[in-house]
Amino acid sequence: LHVFSCNSNPVLARQIAEHIGVPLGDAVVGKFSDGEIHVRLDESVRGSDVYVIQSTSHPVNQHLMELLVMVDALKRASARTINVVMPYYGYARQDRKTRARDPITSKLVANLIETAGADRIITMDLHATQIQGFFDIPVDHLLGVPILGEYFLQKNLQDVVVVSPDHGGVIRARKLAERLGSPIAIIDKRRPEPNVAEVMNIVGDVRGKKAIIIDDIIDTAGTISLAANALLEYGATEVYACCTHPVFSGPAIDRIRDANIKEMVVSNTIPLSEEKLLDKVRVLSVAPLIGEAI
Amino acid sequence: LHVFSCNSNPVLARQIAEHIGVPLGDAVVGKFSDGEIHVRLDESVRGSDVYVIQSTSHPVNQHLMELLVMVDALKRASARTINVVMPYYGYARQDRKTRARDPITSKLVANLIETAGADRIITMDLHATQIQGFFDIPVDHLLGVPILGEYFLQKNLQDVVVVSPDHGGVIRARKLAERLGSPIAIIDKRRPEPNVAEVMNIVGDVRGKKAIIIDDIIDTAGTISLAANALLEYGATEVYACCTHPVFSGPAIDRIRDANIKEMVVSNTIPLSEEKLLDKVRVLSVAPLIGEAI
Ligand SMILES: Nc1ncnc2c1ncn2[C@@H]1O[C@H](COP(=O)(O)O)[C@@H](O)[C@H]1O
Ligand SMILES: Nc1ncnc2c1ncn2[C@@H]1O[C@H](COP(=O)(O)O)[C@@H](O)[C@H]1O
Repeated sequence: LHVFSCNSNPVLARQIAEHIGVPLGDAVVGKFSDGEIHVRLDESVRGSDVYVIQSTSHPVNQHLMELLVMVDALKRASARTINVVMPYYGYARQDRKTRARDPITSKLVANLIETAGADRIITMDLHATQIQGFFDIPVDHLLGVPILGEYFLQKNLQDVVVVSPDHGGVIRARKLAERLGSPIAIIDKRRPEPNVAEVMNIVGDVRGKKAIIIDDIIDTAGTISLAANALLEYGATEVYACCTHPVFSGPAIDRIRDANIKEMVVSNTIPLSEEKLLDKVRVLSVAPLIGEAI
Repeated sequence: LHVFSCNSNPVLARQIAEHIGVPLGDAVVGKFSDGEIHVRLDESVRGSDVYVIQSTSHPVNQHLMELLVMVDALKRASARTINVVMPYYGYARQDRKTRARDPITSKLVANLIETAGADRIITMDLHATQIQGFFDIPVDHLLGVPILGEYFLQKNLQDVVVVSPDHGGVIRARKLAERLGSPIAIIDKRRPEPNVAEVMNIVGDVRGKKAIIIDDIIDTAGTISLAANALLEYGATEVYACCTHPVFSGPAIDRIRDANIKEMVVSNTIPLSEEKLLDKVRVLSVAPLIGEAI
């Protein structure tokens, strides 16, 4: 068994390798002067089961290509099986045609990974669970809820309500609520007329409660900060937010800093740079979970 | 017939569309806040033969992914045929295993383009013509030599010798020499011992002649500037350089500025930013050539 890391998530890769008790494989994933990716495997993988750890987080196209070139190198080096561990699956939000002539980039990415030579995928909290069906190879789909739930259980908050920021996230919210023994509420966004700002109504009772918003991805953090305000208006006493994938792009960090959120709990499927590690951001490791799946 | 452009080479795309007398297709190839590529086709392509113009030049992974997502969108929009016009084929230098456990990224790229749904490829001066065999779809392989040759013919230089900078480029040099009615010479690089600088010997007679070095790709311009010095030492009176693909990465521009080269003639398969357009750099358009092939 060999575990290799590309460049998206070297810390998590090391944690995973430690968890399963093997050293990280010896390889260089670098760049030529013109920006082309260059992979060199410095140990034999012939006949071995190989795991490659790589999230396709920002810069997504480079990280995806690193992964594909690594899989190509492993295949040509006669690895027995190539298991792609992609804690964060980039392009998961382009999972269907929302308009005529849209691409379905999630499916394209699945095809690219299979074409490169992967035998199996391990990933976490896909934005749409349908993406599992985009693959013809086995997909292990891990969930962040147990890790987030464990954290909030240990905090021992009283009078909690778990909040889904949209209708698509209700199942995830319900799973967290079950672990915490709490009710759920749902934020119901409506745009009364075109070009009029959305109104956030809340379905369910949040008055006097501590609200925990859960989402799969927090990207620009616009929804989450508006949702926090709406929850406080409806009488919640405190707002926490949590997600598996902290994309945190564009205005995200400023918004999170300013948001009426007491704590933002995320996992390390996407590493956060120094400047994104605000005091209110708490990072939990998925290494044990992934280590078990390997 | 529709012609779409991604973002690598919008000027060339417009020239090609003009040459064949159709407007450029209406589409947006943009990015979301997190850097994921987003393609929107704003006109119907149902039942149509579509050409997509995109070099996979720097930033190569982004440009490659733009192309793949565009092809995916066209396929799902029921284009009849999808013809990829890739004037510069990125990753062409990773065309074989030079060491154990190397990837063969040129082949991977061929597979990715086919997987996305391309029906045919038009490309120029592949670093290795074997790459044509990496595809199962038709490949039209165009050559820059006629365009470069025409330019030098019009300059009407006397006493010319065409120089290949290495043994791999002799056929290309011979083709240019035939057009100019001139002899050829070959630069023979040897490393006398490991860790000793390469020595450039010249096979063929350059004394008293105007030398024109021809290459497929000029990347960091290290070889070309050393070759120019060697040619002058061996008695050439002037040195010109030409290539189809001006990658010009890293130290290239400083080297070209300082090199003993009178003129550097390149094509526009890769667009050059303002700062790379030195006075001695001359750009010829491949739009008519590609227009004919379409
Ligand atoms: N990387 C991205 N960043 C922001 N929005 C995206 C991204 N990828 C897809 N989308 C859009 O997000 C919407 C899908 O999100 P959802 O409705 O939550 O599944 C679609 O309208 C997509 O066009
Ligand atoms: N993008 C690149 N930049 C510089 N060198 C490269 C690049 N891609 C491949 N190579 C190397 O170039 C050599 C192949 O060039 P050649 O011998 O001219 O075909 C191999 O040693 C490759 O590792």
